[in-house]
Amino acid sequence: MKFGGTSMAGIERIRSVAARVKREAAAGNQVAVVVSAMAGETDRLVGFCREASPLYDPREYDVVVSAGEQITSGLLAIALQAINVPARSLLGWQLPIRTDTAFAKARIDTIDTDALEESFAAGAVAVIPGFQGVAPGQRITTLGRGGSDTSAVAVAAAIRADRCDIYTDVDGVYTTDPRIVPRARKLAKVTYEEMLELASVGAKVLQTRSVGLAMKEKVRVQVLSSFTGRADGDGAPMADTLPGTMIVGEEEIDDVERQLITGIAHDKNEAKITLTRVPDQPGTVASIFEPLAAANINVDMIIQNIAHQSASNGASSTSATDVTFTVPAADLARSIEALNQARETIGFGELIHDTRVAKISVVGVGMRSHAGVASTMFTTLGARGINIQAISTSEIKVSVLIHEDETELAVRVLHTAYGLDAEAA
Amino acid sequence: MKFGGTSMAGIERIRSVAARVKREAAAGNQVAVVVSAMAGETDRLVGFCREASPLYDPREYDVVVSAGEQITSGLLAIALQAINVPARSLLGWQLPIRTDTAFAKARIDTIDTDALEESFAAGAVAVIPGFQGVAPGQRITTLGRGGSDTSAVAVAAAIRADRCDIYTDVDGVYTTDPRIVPRARKLAKVTYEEMLELASVGAKVLQTRSVGLAMKEKVRVQVLSSFTGRADGDGAPMADTLPGTMIVGEEEIDDVERQLITGIAHDKNEAKITLTRVPDQPGTVASIFEPLAAANINVDMIIQNIAHQSASNGASSTSATDVTFTVPAADLARSIEALNQARETIGFGELIHDTRVAKISVVGVGMRSHAGVASTMFTTLGARGINIQAISTSEIKVSVLIHEDETELAVRVLHTAYGLDAEAA
Repeated sequence: MKFGGTSMAGIERIRSVAARVKREAAAGNQVAVVVSAMAGETDRLVGFCREASPLYDPREYDVVVSAGEQITSGLLAIALQAINVPARSLLGWQLPIRTDTAFAKARIDTIDTDALEESFAAGAVAVIPGFQGVAPGQRITTLGRGGSDTSAVAVAAAIRADRCDIYTDVDGVYTTDPRIVPRARKLAKVTYEEMLELASVGAKVLQTRSVGLAMKEKVRVQVLSSFTGRADGDGAPMADTLPGTMIVGEEEIDDVERQLITGIAHDKNEAKITLTRVPDQPGTVASIFEPLAAANINVDMIIQNIAHQSASNGASSTSATDVTFTVPAADLARSIEALNQARETIGFGELIHDTRVAKISVVGVGMRSHAGVASTMFTTLGARGINIQAISTSEIKVSVLIHEDETELAVRVLHTAYGLDAEAA
Repeated sequence: MKFGGTSMAGIERIRSVAARVKREAAAGNQVAVVVSAMAGETDRLVGFCREASPLYDPREYDVVVSAGEQITSGLLAIALQAINVPARSLLGWQLPIRTDTAFAKARIDTIDTDALEESFAAGAVAVIPGFQGVAPGQRITTLGRGGSDTSAVAVAAAIRADRCDIYTDVDGVYTTDPRIVPRARKLAKVTYEEMLELASVGAKVLQTRSVGLAMKEKVRVQVLSSFTGRADGDGAPMADTLPGTMIVGEEEIDDVERQLITGIAHDKNEAKITLTRVPDQPGTVASIFEPLAAANINVDMIIQNIAHQSASNGASSTSATDVTFTVPAADLARSIEALNQARETIGFGELIHDTRVAKISVVGVGMRSHAGVASTMFTTLGARGINIQAISTSEIKVSVLIHEDETELAVRVLHTAYGLDAEAA
């Protein structure tokens, strides 16, 4: 069981988490719990580090920020004991959760399960702070923001857990954002690959890395709400938790359940860049993307228009083309700088950029065996007069770039077109 | 160098601490720093534990509350690096500082100095969180409130430091409380034993245990202010720190410096209990103090009045007496409960209690070789009409119990009587 920061925000909520853990233990399950820091605490600690020095040593940053989860793990152990559930905290260095030495963004190498198995054998619940580990040399590491999901999946994999339940502030994974489409449905099951595609295009339920790890280690992950049963405002935990969404291997989804399209995601955090009049020569595309890669900027969609003869200079008659691609909006300024520095090498005309774009993606493992998914998308959007600025596809995803003002309309019409709308109430 | 919670309260102050550490290092000293948590942080964490369960597991409490010093140790390391002082944090379990398993009030057994010596050899400042250690079984321990002073002295002893500078919010040890006697003088030197007596009677500059350890390990401790040089309000650290008070062995104080009386302390945290008509028989006194000892209550001053014949029962003519003693005011309720439970065994008449008392103590190693200290005290107080309710003495201390309303008057007249007043300005 993994609980996020909003679930741990204050002793009243930690008590409610303890009650949930007790129910699982009382049902005869051996339970390990992974906890985040109290909501806001990690930001507070990161803020201290930045204030102490903008160029802080990541090794010391890890000492500081790992304290947030250390605190909540001890508090949950106390809250569990208070309701007669034997429990103890096991910190990253105690377990240990061994990581590499990439401080502030470490990766887990191995998790020693001896202490966990001892804890289970003693009938106790192990409470493990998420987000932290220990590197060779006995120094504390952290896994990067959102790393507690990864901790939970890694612990589940290490102990061969039957299930990894991740409690969040949503009650599952939906066919699309319910704030846009009220008739969006909660999915009972979704495959790892679909979840990865949905996560990478803005449906931020789980940290992407944790889903990749779950897929690799075949950990069955359930996303469910910490707050179900509290909608009446009395704060009392319900006797039963509503089922959430299971994230599983494709083999666990039978044909009857399988949909052509599982979900529709949208992402407004992209920016579009067009370089005009790029010479149409071998090596030019590489000269564009090399400086971006060197600056650690992820390029997503790429379109190269058909080359056209240059009319400006009849004498040498060079061929030129426009190249359009997207980068994360947060990296736009750095991208422009990198490209302008490489202007001589690339030899482009103008650099045009636009942040008023949105990426809409339809995702589903079903599209592997069905043609026509992409054309349904283009037809549906075209019928509503929505202009497609770029297209990219993967085996289980089709994404288009449109004007951001048309995001909600596009998501709604696609949700209907793919038959995802729930029955009207 | 050890810095308390007010010195670590916020990044601006941590930066000021870093500047002070840099001056010591720049002067060619090898420096280890012990830090407290930010002021208020330990209270916040203790509050969480109590809220989670009034009967919290001290092992988990230690996991939670030790986080406060972990945070400041990382932050000070970052702040030192930012001003080009190589530094790294070394947590209790990393060093390690080995303690016993008395969680929440552990005692240090040994400190491994390998990592410290490596750090010195590398020209780096070691930043050690105070108050924490690690018990057999690799579990985090804490040393009890105020334990950071003890950590500092223990580290100083382990590395055979030339000096242990403890930065506090006072600038040294005074002949008495300067808020009561404006002409109190700052002492240049005080002996361990005097400091112990002063600390135990309310002059709370250092944790008592740390002074005892310094005496045992012959660590020269200097108490000085973190804030000297900031009185002008610009927050800039001064080029030189004003000297504080050195706490040293008696052999370091020469005859010229030696005073008859070093200081006068007062303590309003005592409560007086009188049991009337206690049978004057062998074993009765034991029957009073055994239940208090069993409840872990420290009894301080004890007076047994002269026995008087009981007049109430002419037939059996038993002899009875009144017994008066003091306990910490915080333990009064528990003391009364323990005594009432033992009422049958003790056989006392009434239990009378009074919290409106104060203990005034004159302290000085000089009184070993000088008679008349006690009689000067009684005469001085008597001349001002101050009634003495109880007396206790040690080799270097005379204490009296008086009405708490007379505390300030008593301290003032004694300060003058023993020649401690500074020259008038």
